[in-house]
Amino acid sequence: MPTLDVCFSPELLPLYNLRGKVAVVVDILRATSSMVTALAAGVTHIVPVAELAECREFAPQGYLTAAERDGLQAEGVDLGNSPFGYLDGKVAVQERAVAITTTNGTRAIHLSLSADAVVLGAFLNLEAVAQFLRQQQKDVVVVCAGWKGMFNLEDTLYGGALAERLADGFDISSSDATLAALHLWQLANPDLAGYLLQSSHVRRLNSLEVNQDMDFCIRLDEYNIVPIWQDGRIVAL
Amino acid sequence: MPTLDVCFSPELLPLYNLRGKVAVVVDILRATSSMVTALAAGVTHIVPVAELAECREFAPQGYLTAAERDGLQAEGVDLGNSPFGYLDGKVAVQERAVAITTTNGTRAIHLSLSADAVVLGAFLNLEAVAQFLRQQQKDVVVVCAGWKGMFNLEDTLYGGALAERLADGFDISSSDATLAALHLWQLANPDLAGYLLQSSHVRRLNSLEVNQDMDFCIRLDEYNIVPIWQDGRIVAL
Repeated sequence: MPTLDVCFSPELLPLYNLRGKVAVVVDILRATSSMVTALAAGVTHIVPVAELAECREFAPQGYLTAAERDGLQAEGVDLGNSPFGYLDGKVAVQERAVAITTTNGTRAIHLSLSADAVVLGAFLNLEAVAQFLRQQQKDVVVVCAGWKGMFNLEDTLYGGALAERLADGFDISSSDATLAALHLWQLANPDLAGYLLQSSHVRRLNSLEVNQDMDFCIRLDEYNIVPIWQDGRIVAL
Repeated sequence: MPTLDVCFSPELLPLYNLRGKVAVVVDILRATSSMVTALAAGVTHIVPVAELAECREFAPQGYLTAAERDGLQAEGVDLGNSPFGYLDGKVAVQERAVAITTTNGTRAIHLSLSADAVVLGAFLNLEAVAQFLRQQQKDVVVVCAGWKGMFNLEDTLYGGALAERLADGFDISSSDATLAALHLWQLANPDLAGYLLQSSHVRRLNSLEVNQDMDFCIRLDEYNIVPIWQDGRIVAL
């Protein structure tokens, strides 16, 4: 039976051998939630880049640029890191490509590329990813983007939610991290928004925009989209 | 108000600035539990060393040697990593010094030495350490030894138990890791042994010896001992 493990921080990835496995990168607030939303809104593909300057260089090639630093939209780009940027109609995103850099999410993706496949997870596409993983029948490592390398609650809860969905066909009890994530998810699930309001990250980003974003980012199964890494780009499978 | 943070793995320590803080190193199964027991049984001091060969070199100087690799007593040493080694009378430990090397605990101690003070935590001396920390009034980082760098449940639960004891005088809600540890502790506390039997580490070490050890290592407040790092040695404060 394939295993499901949860890696709480990109800094711990060197301890995990991703070869032959599927990496599910998650940055609930807000990189992967926004990328799922972007593809659902008709974006053709996403190029995740590490640096803001590199991101801006994509503009002349016709890309939309999206960048966040410490929770705010960076200067001189088209979009921040809010999923609503792809939904509110202020920027036309359909059939556009997007170059995106974020504090934690991009780094987690780049550190996961030794996996057989890298997909992006969010509560918004929880079941879509679960279904993809059931088809793959490979070991899974959920790579939590964390906050500057630190453990965070929201990405961990996603790991627990995914473990719950995959409990039937995957070994979810061989990893203490998976057990912890599952138990925290079961504790938080009855009132996910209330639970996450305790989270240091949520409180750090506390603002009207982020609270609206959080309410959106914790919706389950909003989109049937599996963003997957292919040749340097993220596309919808 | 001083903060209490929990670092889930020595691999994450570079993200934490320990200067000006107290590090509480914890390796419940079994390094720090055994060291607390050793000092309570009359051991004068403990020298934690990284390598087995280095450990054996202390024997000619009159030290008892204690070493574990992957959960078993190493060859050619006096003691393994079981706390009962200091209690069962087979080896006379009173007024002796011990050189000890363990898979995870020693490494966690050595990586924590930039802290103002390094003390060893275990369920066995939970309140003694809590009281020490209340007196110090400095920020605290609980350094979980983990399992070969990976998150483990038992060290995390200790972090949660300590957070609960210090909830009055310390900020225990600014760190997602502390919140997670506290919630897991509250979940596990009614049946700590039953909860830990799920733990991958406990199942990995599953044997009569380790089960007996675990039952002992999860006793709360058995010893009023604060092991502290002083000049390359661990002594009882």
